[in-house]
Amino acid sequence: MSDVLKQYREVVSLSKEIQLMTSIDSLLEWDKETYMPEQGIRIRSLQKEYLAKILYEKKTSKGFQEALSKLIDLESGKVLTDALDPAKVAALQRWRRDFIQDSKLDRDFVSELARITSEAAHAWQQAKRQNAYSIFLPHLEKIIEKNCILAEKLGYDQHPYDALIDIYEPEMTTAEVKSLFEQLKPFLIELIAISNKHDFSEKGFIHGDFARELQLDFGKKLINDMGLADDFCRIDRSTHPFCLSLHPKDVRITSHAHCKNMMSNIFTHLHEGGHALYEANLSEEHFGTPLAQSVSSGIHESQSRFWEAIIGHSQPFWEFYFPKLQSLFPDQLASVSLQSFYQTIHRVKPSLIRVHADEVTYCLHIILRFEMELDLISGKLKAKDVPEVWNHKMQQIFGIAPSSDAEGCLQDIHWAIGAFGYFPTYALGNIYSGQLFQALKKDHPDWSQQIGNGNLTFLKTWLCENIYRHGRRYSAKELIQKVSGKELSTIDYMSYLSEKYRKIYR
Amino acid sequence: MSDVLKQYREVVSLSKEIQLMTSIDSLLEWDKETYMPEQGIRIRSLQKEYLAKILYEKKTSKGFQEALSKLIDLESGKVLTDALDPAKVAALQRWRRDFIQDSKLDRDFVSELARITSEAAHAWQQAKRQNAYSIFLPHLEKIIEKNCILAEKLGYDQHPYDALIDIYEPEMTTAEVKSLFEQLKPFLIELIAISNKHDFSEKGFIHGDFARELQLDFGKKLINDMGLADDFCRIDRSTHPFCLSLHPKDVRITSHAHCKNMMSNIFTHLHEGGHALYEANLSEEHFGTPLAQSVSSGIHESQSRFWEAIIGHSQPFWEFYFPKLQSLFPDQLASVSLQSFYQTIHRVKPSLIRVHADEVTYCLHIILRFEMELDLISGKLKAKDVPEVWNHKMQQIFGIAPSSDAEGCLQDIHWAIGAFGYFPTYALGNIYSGQLFQALKKDHPDWSQQIGNGNLTFLKTWLCENIYRHGRRYSAKELIQKVSGKELSTIDYMSYLSEKYRKIYR
Repeated sequence: MSDVLKQYREVVSLSKEIQLMTSIDSLLEWDKETYMPEQGIRIRSLQKEYLAKILYEKKTSKGFQEALSKLIDLESGKVLTDALDPAKVAALQRWRRDFIQDSKLDRDFVSELARITSEAAHAWQQAKRQNAYSIFLPHLEKIIEKNCILAEKLGYDQHPYDALIDIYEPEMTTAEVKSLFEQLKPFLIELIAISNKHDFSEKGFIHGDFARELQLDFGKKLINDMGLADDFCRIDRSTHPFCLSLHPKDVRITSHAHCKNMMSNIFTHLHEGGHALYEANLSEEHFGTPLAQSVSSGIHESQSRFWEAIIGHSQPFWEFYFPKLQSLFPDQLASVSLQSFYQTIHRVKPSLIRVHADEVTYCLHIILRFEMELDLISGKLKAKDVPEVWNHKMQQIFGIAPSSDAEGCLQDIHWAIGAFGYFPTYALGNIYSGQLFQALKKDHPDWSQQIGNGNLTFLKTWLCENIYRHGRRYSAKELIQKVSGKELSTIDYMSYLSEKYRKIYR
Repeated sequence: MSDVLKQYREVVSLSKEIQLMTSIDSLLEWDKETYMPEQGIRIRSLQKEYLAKILYEKKTSKGFQEALSKLIDLESGKVLTDALDPAKVAALQRWRRDFIQDSKLDRDFVSELARITSEAAHAWQQAKRQNAYSIFLPHLEKIIEKNCILAEKLGYDQHPYDALIDIYEPEMTTAEVKSLFEQLKPFLIELIAISNKHDFSEKGFIHGDFARELQLDFGKKLINDMGLADDFCRIDRSTHPFCLSLHPKDVRITSHAHCKNMMSNIFTHLHEGGHALYEANLSEEHFGTPLAQSVSSGIHESQSRFWEAIIGHSQPFWEFYFPKLQSLFPDQLASVSLQSFYQTIHRVKPSLIRVHADEVTYCLHIILRFEMELDLISGKLKAKDVPEVWNHKMQQIFGIAPSSDAEGCLQDIHWAIGAFGYFPTYALGNIYSGQLFQALKKDHPDWSQQIGNGNLTFLKTWLCENIYRHGRRYSAKELIQKVSGKELSTIDYMSYLSEKYRKIYR
């Protein structure tokens, strides 16, 4: 073996240790949300805190730095050998990025942030339950302060918020997000207006009682049809649905199921299934390296939204699956037409809660949070004024305002866990998914017939070929450019929405 | 804080890290046996191998050695301060023991043993399935060889097997076990003969169909009645039942449930519940130190057997619970008398499989394995002759012999996983439990009425006071002496059995 390959393997070996620890932490997290006995939380917190400490030490260790430095100049980013193939070169660049970012922080800062957010998350739950923003306020103030320090530590070119977005969506800037959202916002507001002109009255059948077990069977069938088999992907229940992966051969989804609200549960399966399919098809060969990691939060979200919204809300999808759903629930659905069902799942209506929002209003919830985060981080907006500004913006954008903070600025956990900069990736995921869909349709002009015949396999194959197999070799922007042959823009996503909703609401 | 206390806390802190890692490994193990998707096994093996490596490094680290050495002379065992209370002194002695034992090995030896036993466990499964001892033989030969080396590394006074027993039952020797078993063996053989004179015909009702869910409900009720609440103790299903603890506030039991064989499932709940109650009542305050660890495998087994055999097979226990079982399964049990039920669960019959053995024959299975292990380790018996000797001994002790090795020397996994020296602790558990029961009866002369009234709380309180709260402060022998006021012997266990079975089979 050449020296260069030996040196590369040394980096891989250290990186794999980090990945193994991360995957162990994932199991701790999964268990916490699924089966852990209630009183287990105290020891679980200690376990996770301890693992976080070890992980941080490993990620920033001298040994890792030395191993990396033999192959890439950490200062300039120049790769010091031409004996490695382009994928390995890209891997080195990702490793470098991660190492540099992690090294900008220090253990005490990381621990303190963890402690502050853990306390804030607890306070947020209380505040939300009691609808008392004042309980959360001092915590939010501290978290904003810490996020400002975090941004300074990480560094940025133009706006401190750049540094925060970059944690979740590498190489994406505030200015770019702003520009994308500025196109999206008026478009969506107009689409809501069009949709509201033809408001379908709410269809009662959708809120009928649907036996829990049957819902779960149907959800599981969808997951299997997507290409997720039971021997590497399991589905459990949790309060908030999520997907989490230990390894491509051990991926775990959770869903919820109430007798009411069946469609929400079905779409949850597709959403988490989209995340899971990505994780399950990352390279096993390169496990532990950036070549077997997902690109960014936004690209991950593009996968869940692709399956949930674009495929899972499409006409051909329900041409195939609605008869199956009907035969599972004949009492509730036998007399419902496919058209009526299709209209019902596309009902557009401004609402207070992001996670229950429809496809058209969803991104506006994100834009609202983005605008506020930006002002909070730049200091233009003070934490104490959040409820007032929130309600004002809700009125402005949606024409409705919450009657309580619990349904307003306290609805999401993200700020409490310190995740400033994360929200935009939800909307970016939608934008990415629109551009990917356009590319898919070019490669598969018969997509609609295939899905109508119940064939989803070509989707997995296409996603594998174009996204999954690359791991983190390309940045989100590079990947989108590569798949669609053009720069990232909102055009495809907007025409997808426009075409679809103008047809439904014509 | 005094310097000594500071030094003690430093040891505690390092020891707690080891415990946290161990508890994380426990979760990996639990998940492997309960919910892990089948294909997850490859990454799980890597995770466990990696944790084992880290754990070994921590247990034998220079830092730990230095911290300990400030308080105790590792060479002589002399505690270097008189400022610590007796419990802390005892903790230092346990830490010293563990450190010295671990340090006698080296990472390569530990890794190799892990690899060999992992391969052997796989070969054993195959061999058992195909009833082909020859598949297992070369692996067993390697394992015996490694166990002999292990014994040399650990060191011993008289017999290499001393070193192996000591892993699981500290301070217990081959000679002592031999002496206990020499008293037990003829006694049990005689008791079988007495029992067989009055063989009750097998009661069919016990093998009826009992709905799985109701069995599990009943098992759960027993677990709760023992003092194990849902918020810190959960019950799941696995192929082989086990109990495993992450912390006193996160203890996990598994059971199996087939429609047939309900009683086996009920007794499994009591058995694993006995282990769980011990773990759940170890000191939270001292978590991570020897004062919050169990004494030995034998003492742990004494707890499971206490609940399963002594309490769970007692007349007053079923006076209270049989009517409940009847009302759960009226079709099968309404016409069965308590006496008939009681006789049926006490049927004594030599059988081939250890795990299905009754209370009287059980220890003889252990004695057989002990005798063979002794000869295998001392070289008197060759691995290739194991089947022949096994069958011969079965005939000699039980009067029956297996028609296949799968039902003979291949039935247990213990040798495949390298656990030579473990088997005796199963019988020691029974002997301990008999002596503990005698002590309990002295403290609670009304034990029988209390249990007959469905009060099990006093048992937990008594076990807490006498066993659980001490952690590993005393050795097994010291603890038994302390609780019962006399040295360990088989007398109490034999009179318990004698009294009970002579009454049933009079």
